[in-house]
Amino acid sequence: MRVLVVYAHPVAESFCAALHGKALAALERAGHEVRDLDLYAMDFQPVLTRQERIDYDDAALNTRNIEDHVAHIRWAEALLFVYPTWWYGLPAILKGWLDRVWVPEVTFHMPVGNQPIRPAMTHIRKIGGISTYGAPWWWTRVVGDPGRRTLMRGIKPLCHKKCRTLWLAHYKMDSSTPVSRAAFLEKVERAVERF
Amino acid sequence: MRVLVVYAHPVAESFCAALHGKALAALERAGHEVRDLDLYAMDFQPVLTRQERIDYDDAALNTRNIEDHVAHIRWAEALLFVYPTWWYGLPAILKGWLDRVWVPEVTFHMPVGNQPIRPAMTHIRKIGGISTYGAPWWWTRVVGDPGRRTLMRGIKPLCHKKCRTLWLAHYKMDSSTPVSRAAFLEKVERAVERF
Repeated sequence: MRVLVVYAHPVAESFCAALHGKALAALERAGHEVRDLDLYAMDFQPVLTRQERIDYDDAALNTRNIEDHVAHIRWAEALLFVYPTWWYGLPAILKGWLDRVWVPEVTFHMPVGNQPIRPAMTHIRKIGGISTYGAPWWWTRVVGDPGRRTLMRGIKPLCHKKCRTLWLAHYKMDSSTPVSRAAFLEKVERAVERF
Repeated sequence: MRVLVVYAHPVAESFCAALHGKALAALERAGHEVRDLDLYAMDFQPVLTRQERIDYDDAALNTRNIEDHVAHIRWAEALLFVYPTWWYGLPAILKGWLDRVWVPEVTFHMPVGNQPIRPAMTHIRKIGGISTYGAPWWWTRVVGDPGRRTLMRGIKPLCHKKCRTLWLAHYKMDSSTPVSRAAFLEKVERAVERF
């Protein structure tokens, strides 16, 4: 498969960076074609501008500043997000990647009447997420895991109708141990090898 | 009450801007003290940097770039968010306001063991949100309304234990009408006057 990895963490020595490295290696070992978007390394600008908002619904204009990103999405057969869950969701740099890049006619078609948006990413057959959480799992459940919902429930319906999902989470990072981190790295490696 | 309004929309002629103006006027008519953070007008930078992530847990360092914002949070007795729901949640510029400004010891205390984070905003007695959605309400329910959950379920427990909430939403903006928009503006006015 052609897999687009989207990664967002500012610290190269972080556990999240290690997860990212592990996932890339596992994908390549499994024979996938991989493109890796490291949003911090690219200095991605996540704030949708006034002009971009004005042009948002116009397919002739709405890809002007983001053509490379649109090409990556159209190329991909799978998406794999690797990021830390901050305030229950996506870091701003990753949220803004959706806000700015996921424009109408690229990822979805505008709805008619009382319907939801319609899929434009039917070439995507798998979505995965690998994330670290400060919160324990039970508290994440109480709040409702907004970041995971955004990707797994919000985005999946825009993909192929048989699109599969994978979600891998390490909770309670602030009280994680070398043992818990090593176990999670291994879990990520095994799961991504079968991606 | 001292009310901190946090507003995020790039277009001054937008319906969201009209909601923002209506809310400010209603708060002032009701006799509240108001501070208004217009994140786009301030050119707020929402990307948590490498150094900020490294310093995040250190209360002696973690407010260095955001002292004004921290002062606003400590001043406030109520928070009112006004923003468009994009990709089911907060625009990147607003998500990054949480990522960068809501640091430990200002908004929460780091958890001990298997607990969630503990409140540090017990001076805040009301949280409100006013948002516009492209999606219809039923589809927002299916996805689980990640933006609303983040603020109403995720942040409320960090405030006063009797903290009240208010959520006002206009769904299906793309097929909204002058009538639906006028009705929502009036609803916002009435609700915020009683805020």
